[in-house]
Amino acid sequence: MFKLLKTDEKTKARRGELTTAHGVIQTPIFMPVGTQGTVKTLHPDDLVDLGSQIILGNTYHLNLRPGLEVIRAAQGLHKFSSWDEPILTDSGGFQVWSLAKLRKISEKGVEFANHLDGSKMMMTPENSMEIQATLGSDIAMLFDECPPYPCDEKYAEESLALTTRWAKRCKIWHDENIDTVVPWQVDPSQIDDDKKTPVKRQLAFGIVQGSTFAHLRERSAKELIEIGFDGYAVGGISVGEPEHEMIRAIDNAVPHLPEDKPRYAMGLGTPPQMLEMIARGVDMFDCVMPTRVARHGLAFTHDGPIHIKNKEFELDQRPLTETTHPSVRRFTRSYIRHLWRAKEMLALRLLSYHNLHFYLQLMEQAREAIEAGTFSEFKDAFIGRYTANSK
Amino acid sequence: MFKLLKTDEKTKARRGELTTAHGVIQTPIFMPVGTQGTVKTLHPDDLVDLGSQIILGNTYHLNLRPGLEVIRAAQGLHKFSSWDEPILTDSGGFQVWSLAKLRKISEKGVEFANHLDGSKMMMTPENSMEIQATLGSDIAMLFDECPPYPCDEKYAEESLALTTRWAKRCKIWHDENIDTVVPWQVDPSQIDDDKKTPVKRQLAFGIVQGSTFAHLRERSAKELIEIGFDGYAVGGISVGEPEHEMIRAIDNAVPHLPEDKPRYAMGLGTPPQMLEMIARGVDMFDCVMPTRVARHGLAFTHDGPIHIKNKEFELDQRPLTETTHPSVRRFTRSYIRHLWRAKEMLALRLLSYHNLHFYLQLMEQAREAIEAGTFSEFKDAFIGRYTANSK
Ligand SMILES: [Zn+2]
Ligand SMILES: [Zn+2]
Repeated sequence: MFKLLKTDEKTKARRGELTTAHGVIQTPIFMPVGTQGTVKTLHPDDLVDLGSQIILGNTYHLNLRPGLEVIRAAQGLHKFSSWDEPILTDSGGFQVWSLAKLRKISEKGVEFANHLDGSKMMMTPENSMEIQATLGSDIAMLFDECPPYPCDEKYAEESLALTTRWAKRCKIWHDENIDTVVPWQVDPSQIDDDKKTPVKRQLAFGIVQGSTFAHLRERSAKELIEIGFDGYAVGGISVGEPEHEMIRAIDNAVPHLPEDKPRYAMGLGTPPQMLEMIARGVDMFDCVMPTRVARHGLAFTHDGPIHIKNKEFELDQRPLTETTHPSVRRFTRSYIRHLWRAKEMLALRLLSYHNLHFYLQLMEQAREAIEAGTFSEFKDAFIGRYTANSK
Repeated sequence: MFKLLKTDEKTKARRGELTTAHGVIQTPIFMPVGTQGTVKTLHPDDLVDLGSQIILGNTYHLNLRPGLEVIRAAQGLHKFSSWDEPILTDSGGFQVWSLAKLRKISEKGVEFANHLDGSKMMMTPENSMEIQATLGSDIAMLFDECPPYPCDEKYAEESLALTTRWAKRCKIWHDENIDTVVPWQVDPSQIDDDKKTPVKRQLAFGIVQGSTFAHLRERSAKELIEIGFDGYAVGGISVGEPEHEMIRAIDNAVPHLPEDKPRYAMGLGTPPQMLEMIARGVDMFDCVMPTRVARHGLAFTHDGPIHIKNKEFELDQRPLTETTHPSVRRFTRSYIRHLWRAKEMLALRLLSYHNLHFYLQLMEQAREAIEAGTFSEFKDAFIGRYTANSK
């Protein structure tokens, strides 16, 4: 399912191809986040125009609202949200940790009060996988326990051991049930003919934990590989740690992961961070940042982020960034600034669209640079210009 | 510039063609409202997909923000907002009346405190036309005085006389200056080749006032025709009067308007109201209603409006309305209800898109029915079904 096409000679950057039931994904890749069954402010057609190869769905949120009965009636998340390309769903573990209240972790799973109405719920490895199967995502993530930052070695070690035991239960549930629950497994006609790929089942990815401890990251990776997953994520990052700890977590985990499986750094990051991660052999990223900061008026540019409300853009007839993308070239900074000041929703939409374009274009350029053997130079030039103003 | 193609035999409905510098408009037509240089929640591409032939811009709002310096830098509203189809601008008279504070009306014009920062401004017939010329709209409306409802005959008569004197000043300013101010007059290359029409100048429409008084509506119409405009609007309606007074205003004005010019009922209306107006010989409509009620969760259907938040739509796999439009058919009520409850902007966007589709489709069906000689039957059938549930 994953084909490693090329490894960079100067860095560990990889050019790969991940095949899922809904299509083939070229890596390195950034995955826009569609928490509640929509990438905020955007239409599925926008995501296609942007060249999004895969988007994320959120197990915790979608299970609460609209709930599985609604998803079942629509025959899965693809049909529900009218998105016929690949979807990856997280397991809910991170949201149970970051959003829910009154968490009680036991061997069985996590009991918590949900953030919408406070009612008590239980999430277990088995029901996380069942929810993801019902959503019908192309890639399911195992249900893990995400330790906080900072955390002591004892907590990290026990948490990692629990995550491994849960990973086994996830794998068992997935192996036994996946062919009878995923909507497009039950009714293959749900995958459009032109989307049909050799992959006929939902993939499952493990999540390496171990906090800031190198030997625990190694142990976690080895235990997960022993169980056997279709890909491996590095979790427990982007939880408030400083950037160098985030990089260290990748450095501690990635060397222990198999060459022939995709690697996913969860919840990252800024454009320079993603390039640093690619150089370390990471293939997949997701982050709410490009759409979230857009809703606060920020646009990414090659010279770093700009705030569109600034007076300097009042008469600026240039697009947000230089690009050949017609839908981005089309609108001036002057116009988008006006929309922002007039509180028009189109401002949020054009900024979100632009920022995702910036991220997806960065990945496309990274892929081209790896193919051309110039990734190291590309990375240094990009980061040099991006950070020049902040030095 | 206006070609009357057919008049219905049973009603006064007309099928016509209005040629402007940015394109030819098939009437009867509904014009989506882009108050601040954007039709709320929508992208210009959406408006093209919806078959919008012309949209509105707002002189009062755009003059305040972004202001003419910004519009001039962009070389007009078309380029600023990336909309290359026809635009009609209102004169600002209605907003001075409905939004501004501390109005002082004099022969010269209206002094007022603007609704954004309260600063004092003056709007005159001349500067309203100059602003509209700078915006570069395809159709400019004369600057009028809009009497309130109800209003006594003396007020209505004096107000109407003032509107006529202002109409003359508008016409004089327009005749003398239009060829040197409108961006695409100054630089004809600004109109794309495929948009070039025999019309090379901004059109100007008069506005019939006279409140609820039949003889004053007649006098207003005759005085405006004497001055000579490219089209005639009925103003001072949709200002809080009951529906039968709105219809009466049309009945009092339209018979005095020339056959060979387009007729525009300002600020209307519900789907049944528009069909009643078409039956009385009106050609053009504009209204914020389809997009405004969308932002409150309402969708127009052939059986009357529905509120998407209602529980009954939880599992409803049908689109908002039966239609052949692929972008409307694509999303289920169940999905849009979920987006609405999750406070996702895509809900407002899909509802706005749908409601404009409903309005524009109604106009298209009206045009076809007039051509086929079945308008009267079409109107009765539509209104019968639309209002059946409310009886
Ligand atoms: Zn599908
Ligand atoms: Zn143009």
